[in-house]
Amino acid sequence: MAAAQLTTDHLTERHRPTLEKALDAIRTRAYWSPHPEHPKAYGEDGSLSAADGLAAHQAVLGRRFELDQPGTDGWTGGETSPYGPALGVEYPHADVEVLLPAMRAAMAGWRDAGPETRALVCLEVLARISARTHEFAHAVMHTSGQAFMMAFQAGGPHAQDRGLEAVAYAYAEQVRVPLVADWSKPQGKKEPLELRKSFTPVGRGVALMIGCNTFPTWNGYPGLFASLATGNAVLVKPHPRAVLPLALTVQVAREVLAEAGFDPNLVALAVERPGEGIAKELALRPEVRIIDYTGSTSFGDWLEANARQAQVYTEKAGVNTVVVDSTDDYRGMLGNLAFSLSLYSGQMCTTPQNVLIPRDGITTDAGPKSYDEVVADLAGAVSGLLGDDARANALLGALVNPDVRARLEAAPELGEVVLASREVAHPDFPDAVVRTPVIVSLDGAKPDADAVYLSECFGPVAFAVRVESTADAVELLRRTIREQGAMTVGAYTTSPDVERAVEEVCLEESAQLSLNLTGGVYVNQTSAFSDFHGSGGNPAANAALCDGAFVANRFRVVEVRRPA
Amino acid sequence: MAAAQLTTDHLTERHRPTLEKALDAIRTRAYWSPHPEHPKAYGEDGSLSAADGLAAHQAVLGRRFELDQPGTDGWTGGETSPYGPALGVEYPHADVEVLLPAMRAAMAGWRDAGPETRALVCLEVLARISARTHEFAHAVMHTSGQAFMMAFQAGGPHAQDRGLEAVAYAYAEQVRVPLVADWSKPQGKKEPLELRKSFTPVGRGVALMIGCNTFPTWNGYPGLFASLATGNAVLVKPHPRAVLPLALTVQVAREVLAEAGFDPNLVALAVERPGEGIAKELALRPEVRIIDYTGSTSFGDWLEANARQAQVYTEKAGVNTVVVDSTDDYRGMLGNLAFSLSLYSGQMCTTPQNVLIPRDGITTDAGPKSYDEVVADLAGAVSGLLGDDARANALLGALVNPDVRARLEAAPELGEVVLASREVAHPDFPDAVVRTPVIVSLDGAKPDADAVYLSECFGPVAFAVRVESTADAVELLRRTIREQGAMTVGAYTTSPDVERAVEEVCLEESAQLSLNLTGGVYVNQTSAFSDFHGSGGNPAANAALCDGAFVANRFRVVEVRRPA
Repeated sequence: MAAAQLTTDHLTERHRPTLEKALDAIRTRAYWSPHPEHPKAYGEDGSLSAADGLAAHQAVLGRRFELDQPGTDGWTGGETSPYGPALGVEYPHADVEVLLPAMRAAMAGWRDAGPETRALVCLEVLARISARTHEFAHAVMHTSGQAFMMAFQAGGPHAQDRGLEAVAYAYAEQVRVPLVADWSKPQGKKEPLELRKSFTPVGRGVALMIGCNTFPTWNGYPGLFASLATGNAVLVKPHPRAVLPLALTVQVAREVLAEAGFDPNLVALAVERPGEGIAKELALRPEVRIIDYTGSTSFGDWLEANARQAQVYTEKAGVNTVVVDSTDDYRGMLGNLAFSLSLYSGQMCTTPQNVLIPRDGITTDAGPKSYDEVVADLAGAVSGLLGDDARANALLGALVNPDVRARLEAAPELGEVVLASREVAHPDFPDAVVRTPVIVSLDGAKPDADAVYLSECFGPVAFAVRVESTADAVELLRRTIREQGAMTVGAYTTSPDVERAVEEVCLEESAQLSLNLTGGVYVNQTSAFSDFHGSGGNPAANAALCDGAFVANRFRVVEVRRPA
Repeated sequence: MAAAQLTTDHLTERHRPTLEKALDAIRTRAYWSPHPEHPKAYGEDGSLSAADGLAAHQAVLGRRFELDQPGTDGWTGGETSPYGPALGVEYPHADVEVLLPAMRAAMAGWRDAGPETRALVCLEVLARISARTHEFAHAVMHTSGQAFMMAFQAGGPHAQDRGLEAVAYAYAEQVRVPLVADWSKPQGKKEPLELRKSFTPVGRGVALMIGCNTFPTWNGYPGLFASLATGNAVLVKPHPRAVLPLALTVQVAREVLAEAGFDPNLVALAVERPGEGIAKELALRPEVRIIDYTGSTSFGDWLEANARQAQVYTEKAGVNTVVVDSTDDYRGMLGNLAFSLSLYSGQMCTTPQNVLIPRDGITTDAGPKSYDEVVADLAGAVSGLLGDDARANALLGALVNPDVRARLEAAPELGEVVLASREVAHPDFPDAVVRTPVIVSLDGAKPDADAVYLSECFGPVAFAVRVESTADAVELLRRTIREQGAMTVGAYTTSPDVERAVEEVCLEESAQLSLNLTGGVYVNQTSAFSDFHGSGGNPAANAALCDGAFVANRFRVVEVRRPA
């Protein structure tokens, strides 16, 4: 192996201060990020400007994406942007019989590097990704359908934050045990028993990261970096519609690993041929000992039940609820909810689906409001927010795939439409499928209404559910979390008793709660280093991003005892 | 609920310093224990003396063991000491339809108490158990068959250490996140976004601890205390032959919980009627969200495959290997190995089973030794160690159950007997089944020899395996760990290359290694706060005692966000 171009000294100087700050942030959970959110913050110090990012993106389109992985047995691809254009990128197709052993063989050197070097190398990978944020923004936009600014922020700095957070947790977890300990046990008058003990964190094997269509980097980076930082090799299996952002990620990781003197096969890409369904095959391979997955409940459940040789971390479907009891800022509540329902056309696992409103209405600072008034005002707030096409495009993005569009189109049959969806034309991409959300009112007292609101209807479909009372809303919240899972819960109330009741349900059913959000923080957004994404304690996900449990079982500690 | 007799102030004063020391010990992994190993250290400061402990033990025999649990629908029992006498104790039999909901209902108050109070209450439980160590010693002796001194130490202070270690890990894991955080995100020239966030660790539900026959307290306490300290209720399901030590534990825990103002149903006992097999039923109950199990591979695998609603921590069968390559202390090596093979008649999950010795012999400080010489000298060391009946009884204890005896009696058929087992008479218990270990020599080159040495033969049966070379021994070690799992690995070598090769196998296959032990530390003994018991990375166990991974997934953190 060639001498490393990236020495430990370099890496320490560049990244140790960032690691320290990240470790501090996950302890205090105060606001912190080293990754700027504003596009204009990029373009100096070696990072790509907006123009250079776009050019870099365009340069990878319509050609082969070279990775120099072992075991490439052909080329595959076929992504089409939710905005219309085909990307035309072809990726190497892997012969896993060759690739997986090569990845396993890369692990010993990575293990011997130790937790700190591994963390610093991961931070270099993230820093180079950060420098290419403008390029990644286009890749995320044209695979997920997110609007540019969201693709930039959620696919760039926010995803990098989540990756860094995972590295910090992984590092902290591994250094809880010292590398060496001297042990001396008194024996009364006799000589003490003395041993020298060494402790080595060892990865479990190959980690399989199965990416999703909507947030390829944001949902992918935590597992990828948690596994890599704990000594595992990571095989990235992107969603076939969202390969490019993860292919770029793998490319950067391989480049950094090689420069730091490690085997680049510690990170590799596995793209499937159309209809090949390689996730199932990969998930059952004996080399694969960790799996991270974001996607459908059915495949997540299949992984948990069948990939028994692996630690499986899943984020699946859920039904997110907002309980509306009362508010002292009616206008703020409506504006906040309207934004939450509209952002990325409701295609976030954290978007509220069911807004529970008592049959007799609610009290507000603007006087009592009936159920119908609340629903109509919410519809009005959404239409107002999205009335201007430019603003609508900037908020909504495009529908990510035909399934979402089909659900949207079927939604009016489910109840009373209080806000119809409308088509929005995109000025640059005539084939983009841009739609405003539909709001459907359901009477919770009707038999079988629960068959509708207790199913996840992923996409721009929200249900206003007329419930008997706030107490009933709280009980329905409990049932929804327990049976369907929830990534988020929201509630609006001025009553301490109701607040306490909702909080108690969330504590008992293990769901993350946002209370009385009326300003610029939304129930569907979380901030790395401070907020937990999911709880891992209800059916929507078996892990939270990011906590000790997310990293602790990705490695084991091997102890060697010797007489001192 | 009555006012708490045990206030937080009392608990803090009594136990906070111990908790601090335990937290320090798991970081430094230096020697530490607050629980004296010597029987004479007890009898003052409220702890039971030897005589009082024996009297207390005798007082519970032959009668009903009252626990005042909800849902008791009868009485059951039937333990017989491996030393002969029937214990005659009857325990409440639980109607789980009543008991489990009562346990679940106890959790909210325990959750609200927070991590520190929970830890301190657990430490009070352990302190009261410690004060009754002399009583527990008899209970462990007459259920496990351990000799008195081992029952005293392993069943008393060492088990209490492991419980305390679990509490320390659980506490440390829960306080990694602050209870409250203020979050302020700058917005350029606009006012910052501000939130107040609260974080609450919440238990998962009822934790089921399934006890084992050989080490009811030592193997049971880590799971029990890890689950309790992280906010769960714990249902203790003892092995039907080893109920008493865990019944005493449950009794103490319920007493302390009530005195501290908590619902005693946070800890309860479930004893099965003969042949009832309630572990399977309990393991699948929806209330049960955590399971700790020590026992057979078949039932451990069943739990992992079927109890999908729960986090399952298992310690199962394994095959422990000692590689003998060379030594500079031949006499020390033989003495150390002889002790390891004899202690508790090889009925430890950590006892070596296969001693791999090269066909051409080994080099030692006493000159070269052929395979036959090494085997004969090891046999001689064991006979010497156990030649005196009093010493033999003190080391061996009694065979724990008829299965072990049957395996011992069948062992001579497996190969060439180089040391026959002998019966040892016990001076106090004429019905005790006390046997010295058998050593059987196997030729590794023979076809199908691996069918013998690659199966766990739990009990006083050791195999000397003649291998081609040290290199072959190292490869057989790898295969054994990978296929069968191992709780421990031992090796003797003076060669840095061999040492490195054995270490590499243990790192790659995730097994705990003891090198060149020749003095008073044995491969089958681990020290809480310093040594890991198992690795969780090979088939013998899916968790280690005790590390972050053992506690991190027993609770989830629920966040509540509010505008600041």
